[in-house]
Order: sequence, then C-alpha cells, then structure tokens
Amino acid sequence: MTTAYQKLEDINKRIHNFGHLGAILSWDEAVNMPPGSGEARAESISELYAYISEVKQNPEIKELIEKAKSEDLDELQKANLDLMDEGWKKSNVLSTDFVRRKSMTNMKCEQAWRRLRSENNWNEFKSLMEEVVTLIREEAEMRSADTGLGLYDSLLDLYEPGLRSSEVDEIFNQLIAELPSLRDEITEFQQSRPFTKPEGPFATEDQKALGLEIINAMGFDFNRGRLDVSHHPFCGGVPEDVRMTTRYSKEDFTESLMGIVHETGHARYEQSLPRTWISQPLGQSRGMAVHEGQSLFFEMQMGRSKEFIQFALPLMKKHLYKGGNEEAWSEENMTRLYQHVTPGYIRVDADEVTYPFHVILRYEIERDILDRKIEVKDLPEVWDAKMQEYLGLSTKDNYANGVMQDVHWPSGAMGYFPTYTLGAIVASQLFSALETARPEVRSEITKGEFGNINKWLEENVWSHGSRYSVQELMQKVTGKKLNADTFIKHLKNRYLS
Amino acid sequence: MTTAYQKLEDINKRIHNFGHLGAILSWDEAVNMPPGSGEARAESISELYAYISEVKQNPEIKELIEKAKSEDLDELQKANLDLMDEGWKKSNVLSTDFVRRKSMTNMKCEQAWRRLRSENNWNEFKSLMEEVVTLIREEAEMRSADTGLGLYDSLLDLYEPGLRSSEVDEIFNQLIAELPSLRDEITEFQQSRPFTKPEGPFATEDQKALGLEIINAMGFDFNRGRLDVSHHPFCGGVPEDVRMTTRYSKEDFTESLMGIVHETGHARYEQSLPRTWISQPLGQSRGMAVHEGQSLFFEMQMGRSKEFIQFALPLMKKHLYKGGNEEAWSEENMTRLYQHVTPGYIRVDADEVTYPFHVILRYEIERDILDRKIEVKDLPEVWDAKMQEYLGLSTKDNYANGVMQDVHWPSGAMGYFPTYTLGAIVASQLFSALETARPEVRSEITKGEFGNINKWLEENVWSHGSRYSVQELMQKVTGKKLNADTFIKHLKNRYLS
Repeated sequence: MTTAYQKLEDINKRIHNFGHLGAILSWDEAVNMPPGSGEARAESISELYAYISEVKQNPEIKELIEKAKSEDLDELQKANLDLMDEGWKKSNVLSTDFVRRKSMTNMKCEQAWRRLRSENNWNEFKSLMEEVVTLIREEAEMRSADTGLGLYDSLLDLYEPGLRSSEVDEIFNQLIAELPSLRDEITEFQQSRPFTKPEGPFATEDQKALGLEIINAMGFDFNRGRLDVSHHPFCGGVPEDVRMTTRYSKEDFTESLMGIVHETGHARYEQSLPRTWISQPLGQSRGMAVHEGQSLFFEMQMGRSKEFIQFALPLMKKHLYKGGNEEAWSEENMTRLYQHVTPGYIRVDADEVTYPFHVILRYEIERDILDRKIEVKDLPEVWDAKMQEYLGLSTKDNYANGVMQDVHWPSGAMGYFPTYTLGAIVASQLFSALETARPEVRSEITKGEFGNINKWLEENVWSHGSRYSVQELMQKVTGKKLNADTFIKHLKNRYLS
Repeated sequence: MTTAYQKLEDINKRIHNFGHLGAILSWDEAVNMPPGSGEARAESISELYAYISEVKQNPEIKELIEKAKSEDLDELQKANLDLMDEGWKKSNVLSTDFVRRKSMTNMKCEQAWRRLRSENNWNEFKSLMEEVVTLIREEAEMRSADTGLGLYDSLLDLYEPGLRSSEVDEIFNQLIAELPSLRDEITEFQQSRPFTKPEGPFATEDQKALGLEIINAMGFDFNRGRLDVSHHPFCGGVPEDVRMTTRYSKEDFTESLMGIVHETGHARYEQSLPRTWISQPLGQSRGMAVHEGQSLFFEMQMGRSKEFIQFALPLMKKHLYKGGNEEAWSEENMTRLYQHVTPGYIRVDADEVTYPFHVILRYEIERDILDRKIEVKDLPEVWDAKMQEYLGLSTKDNYANGVMQDVHWPSGAMGYFPTYTLGAIVASQLFSALETARPEVRSEITKGEFGNINKWLEENVWSHGSRYSVQELMQKVTGKKLNADTFIKHLKNRYLS
C-alpha cells in the first residue's frame, strides 16, 4: 500500500519536474530568446507557474501531510515532511490567478528593462515598475496577513526561510557603524599600492577558454551544466543541469573572470545537493543567503585571495597575455587589482568592503516601498541621496548605473538583496571554519587543488540541502550564528596587512 | 456570456502555451543540454506531455465541441472547430500513462543515439530501438482500432492529416518506375560536366556569417527566431520563436549552407502563419508534407537553381574565399557542384534525384515493421539489401551511415518519412504555379529579391494555416492533386539541359 508520505513524495516529484521546465525556459529567455518572442514566452511561463501553483494548492496535499505525520518516518523523511508543510502554507497565500498576473507583469517589465536600461530610459521603465510594485505590495500584505510577519519579513522569508529583518538589522547596523572608518583606513593604506590594468582587447573566446579552465579546476561538472552569456550574470537551471552565465568585456577580462568564479560557487552547491533527495523539498538548496555564501566563498574568500591569483595568473597569461606591459601581469599587481577598494556605481562590480552599502541602500528602499513611504516615482531621487550618503557618488540622471542597474526589482524580487551581504558573512564564517579545520587550505588554493575544499563544503553545507535554516547551519558548522565579526576580521586581515 | 466556442478557444490557448514550453525545451535538449542531464530532462518533458494529454482528454472539451456546433460561427471559426474535433479524437486514443511512457522511451533512445551513432554501436542501440518499436506498434494498433485506418495510415495521418498510403503508393510507384532510367541518363549527361570542390578549411564563424546574410535576404525574421548548431539539423521552436539549427563542416561549407536555406523554408512558413489564429488549431502549420514542401521550395526549387547560385556566389566569396583556385569559385562550377547527382549513404545530403529512394526504402521498412514482417534485429540486413537495390551501395557494418543515420526512428517517429518526398512534389508543384503566375520569379532570385516570392507563398500557402488538407491545398493553388509529373518534369529540365 502506498503511504501518505509516498504519495507526497510523488506529488513533489511532479512539482520538481514542472519546475525543471520553468527553470530552463527562464534561462533560455535570458540567454537565447529573441526580443520579439517575449510576449508569447511570458504567457507560456505564466501559464506554467499558474499551473504549478494550482498543483501545490491541491487540498489533498494538506490531508496527506496530516496523515503522514502519524506514519513511521525516519529523521530525514520527517524533515522533508516539515518542509512540505512549510511549502504548502506558502503556496496557499496567493491565488492561481494572482500568480499568473504577477508572472506576466514581472516578465513584461524585465524584458523591457533589458532594452530600457541600455537606453537609460527611466520614464518608460517607471510605469512598468509601478505595475510590478503594486503586485509586490499586494503579495507582501497577503503574506503578512497570513503569517503575522511584518511586510518585509513576509518577503525575506521567501528567499531565506526563517530569517527575520531584526536579525538583518543587527548585522547591518554593525556594518554601518564599523565599515566607513575601515574603508577610509583601507583607502589610505592602498594609496601607496598602485596597480595597472592589463591592456586589451581580449577576445571573447580567449576569455571563455580561461574561464572554462578555471571552473573546471574548481570542480564544475560540465556533464551536468553549461556556461553562457547573458545581460545580467546569473546561475540558473536545475541541480541536474546548471546553467551559469557571464558577460564579457573586450577591454577588461578581470571582472568577467571573477564573475564566473562567483557563479561557480552557486553551481557547485546546486550540483552537490543530495542526489537521492533531488526531487524533494529536502534536496533543494536552502535560502539565498546560504547560496550567496557559496558564491562569495568562491569569489571573495578564495577567488580574490593572493593564493588564488598565484594559481590563476599562469592561466590568465596562457590565454590572454600577448607580450609587453609585464608589470601589469605580475602577481603583486594582479592581487592589488583584485583587492582594490573603491566606491563605484555598480553593485555587481563592487569590492567586498563597499558592497554592503549597495545592499543596505536597496534594503532600506525596499522597506520604504513596502511601507508605502516612497513611491516608484521617488526612486531616482532616493537612490541618489543614499548613494551620496553611503558611497559619496551621485547617480543623478544616470538611471542605467543607478536604480535601473539590477534585474531584481524589474523581475519582481524584493526582500532578496539582504541575502547578498548575509552571504558575504556566511562565506567568511565558513572559510574561517574551514581554515581552522584544515590549515593547509591556502596552500591548496595556490596549487589549484580544490578537491578537499569542495569535499569539506559538500560534507558541511551542500549535502544538507534544505535540512537546516541558515542560523542552524552556521551554528552547526562555525559554532556561531550569523554575525559580522568574522567578516570584518577577514576584511582587516586582507586589506590592512 | 462566454460561448462554448470561446471556452474552447481558451482551452486551446492554454494547450498552445504548454506546447510552447515543450517545443523550446526539446530544442534546448538537442542544442544545449549537457549529456548528463538527459534523464532529468526526459522526466520533465514526459511529465509535460502527459499533462498536455490529460488537458486534451478532458471530457468537457467534447461537450463544448458538440455545443459549439450549434453556435453562430463564421467560416474560419467553423474550420477551427472541425480541427478541434479532429484533435479531440486523436488525443483520446492514447492514455496519459502511455504518452508518458512513450515520451520517456523515445527520449532515452534518442539521447543514447547521439552517442551510439558516433560510435557505430548497433548492438547497444538495438535494444533501445526495440523498446521504441514496441510502443510504436502498440500506438499504431490502438489508433488503427480507433479509426479503422490501416496500421501505417494511422501513423501517417498524424504527420499529414488526411493523406493515405494508397495515395503515397501511387506516387512512389511512378517514381520507382521513372527515376532509375532518368538517374542513369543524368549520370551520363553529367560525366562531361566535372566540378571541383572549393578547398577549406572554412571557419565556422565565417560560414555562420554567410548563412545569416543569406537567410536574412530570404526573409527570416531574427526578431522571432534564431540559428544554432545541433547534431541533426532541424527547425523547431514555435511560430513566435522559431529555432533553426544546422551543423558545420570545416572542410565543406556547401552542405551546411544549403541546409540553412532548407530550414529557412520551414521557418518562413512558421513565422508567416496567421497571427490572429496562432494559439488555435487553425493557425498551426498543416502537415509535414506541406511543411517539407516549403523547405524544399527554398532548398531545391530555389536554392540549387543556377539563379540562386548567381545571387549567392558573391556572398560565398565575400565570407569564405581566401584567394587561389578560382575555377572552383566560378558560377558554372558552383552550379554543377550543387546540381551534381550521385548516390550516397546519407539521406539529408542526397541530391533531389536520388533522394526519393532514401525515402522509399524507409517507407517500405516502416510498413514491414508495423506489419511485424521484420524485427529491429533485421534492420541492418534489410537496410543493406534495399540500399544495394535502390542506390547500388552497401552499408554492411556501417550502421552510422546506414540504419542509424536519422533521428526519426530513435525518437519514435514512424510514418513521417514519406512526407519528405511528398514535400519535394509539393515544392515542384508550387514553384511551377508561381512561375506561371509570375514569370519574373527566376530573375528575382538572381537579384536576391525574395519579397514577392514570400508574398506569393504567404498568400497561397502560409496564411491558410491548417485550413486545407494537402490535397485540397494543392488542388486550390496548383490546379492538381499531389502527383509526380511536375516533379519529374522539373528534374528533366534542371538536369538534362
């Protein structure tokens, strides 16, 4: 006889299969789809998401969950059942029709954004963004009414389940208190450490060959994944078929390369989720803070370390160096380049010292949007004011490099941004724990040996899937909850010595 | 109040949206998917097709169809309703579970085929193909029982609705009777017309640039379509987002180029289907004989004509000619090359005189498979015998270039092959009708002016979607039903003068 729990596993397997379609189609939309196909694609994907939402809302699921609770389950099955219950509640807040409207609205805005950003066209973007915000607010209000959480927390909980903005505030307040003086100190320290940029042009295919060699060394499984190009780099697809993207600049290979290393962190996590649980909630990656913890472990903790530069420089030279300007291609210069701290407009290009301010300003704006303290029309002004306050830069009339720079808001994602900086903290805590456990880690990086590092991450993080909340996971692996101390210590070590 | 007919249109819109997902995912599977992801992809796509089959089998549809029959509909709506009725019947033959099993079995075999063909590995392929054939036979038997059609006709009807194998036999018998002597005559005629192949290597990106320029001239809409690379060239995607593929050989650009021209015929058809009906059965392309009629109109009627070579040669030179060997790059040599008739192993590379034999041998084998006169294990031997009979070539031990060369059987498609040669006949009848209506067509091709040609095809064929059966369409546009006369006349004109 099939148990209620087995029936639930089958239903989740089905949801997983439909999710696969959506994930690959969304990747295709960003990477391949010709612009004129946008509307048809938006309708098809929205149809799919509406249907998935319908499947998830089947009342039978709730009955099966209640029944399964009294069945004889092992510990992992119990954890899986708890996650099903959590998912059931979240899925039942929004009507199928709302899911469809939201998907259509977000995709329309995101598709237009790709063009409008390059045109710096705020006016046309604004009205599309207003439609998106209307639905985000509605969603937050419905979720808040359902869970009793605050508006912001009701969205944050979608991206990092269990985490609350009070915990975020505590961490961000510490960063606001300590980072500005640290940044000034670093800036002064780095004044006597100038660097030069290697001169291009660097052919796209050479950059790609370099990237492929490096991510191959880092353990990316090409049998179950790809690397392509998109407007906004991301790691998408499904654990069985991970689709990373980057974008190449002919003049500067360094950012694209580190972007690829970043996405490889996401990809390794996805590719190392527990295979036997892959179609179940337990087998999914946890929240986005944990996810970003992996990508920033790869990019910031490893990738921008002097040990990594030692490993990567010969490969950079092999693929890109055409002679001349030897100074720019030295280990010391490349390390200084990759560790240079300077405020900039673009979040994804920011160094790890100024990055938190990019996140904090977005977090503050998102909260005020949800609380209806500001409207979409106010965004450029508010953005400019906060950029001046936190980074000393003005984005007046520069929408493309200001409020229109990220894909998140146009695609309807608010409550997501904090997970980037929490991810930086996760990464620093994980690396510190790893270094304590295995002091040889830095010399392994120098040699391009990532096998043991991957093994440690797999055992301690990746193989757990969604079993633990980010706080539980940090406590278990690093002995401490999420906190900014290790991160700040890491910054001091790296940038002031 | 919503009428029954409107409800049916909504249901078909939904089916269209889900079909979009399947079409792009199948394209992705052939073009992008890493091999290790095959199983997960097969499960997801099979889940989707099973669900689409479930949607199509909803008994409410039948009730709505009956109700709509007495509603006040215009002529096009009536035609659309008839097609819905036809679709309803076809969808109800196979159980959802059968659809899922068939999809899984076919995808497993097709995925393995990509690898096994390159390994010439018949033994491993055989057992997978046996599973596929078991289901094809089951399907044919179920469909035959449902419709009263013969086994072969019950499958042929899926690919070219309304066409029967008795009509196919009549045409094929004429070809078997007339083509061998014509081929011998042409072979003799061509002995005094030698040609040389342009010498490579030809860089893939140069070949691609050439292809893009040519299909752009032929009216391919890049705003709603793409050109990529796959193991077996095809035209997939959806009318709103057409995905053509080709494969490049560094040594020989000529086949790939004509392959692209071929797929452009398919693509123009899809892109020119009536937009207001795009989500409805009426707005779909008709059968595969009509479809292949468009691709062969582009490739054979236009592409391999001396007028087309006149237009394309300067572009070939611009992208690929690096000096030397001038003779090979002359109009006369290139025309001889593109019109050379010689028996070969590979169907997709065959000239239009020997091509029908590739189709006829497959057609005969398929019939015997369905009639259980031969088994999968007999295929190599039967194939070899028929190749010797029809083309004078042996494929003994050469599975890769013999029975394993096509994607159709491994992907579960039997009853499809005849549409290729019927397409050649459609193409010749259409071109002849066009030339009668517009005698200036050849001089337009010489100048690379395809606008009026496309317009004529759009008015006479493409804009009708699925409104007419292939026989009705041929009668309407060319004044005659499908027959081999015009095709044979075309061959004589082109190859013996």
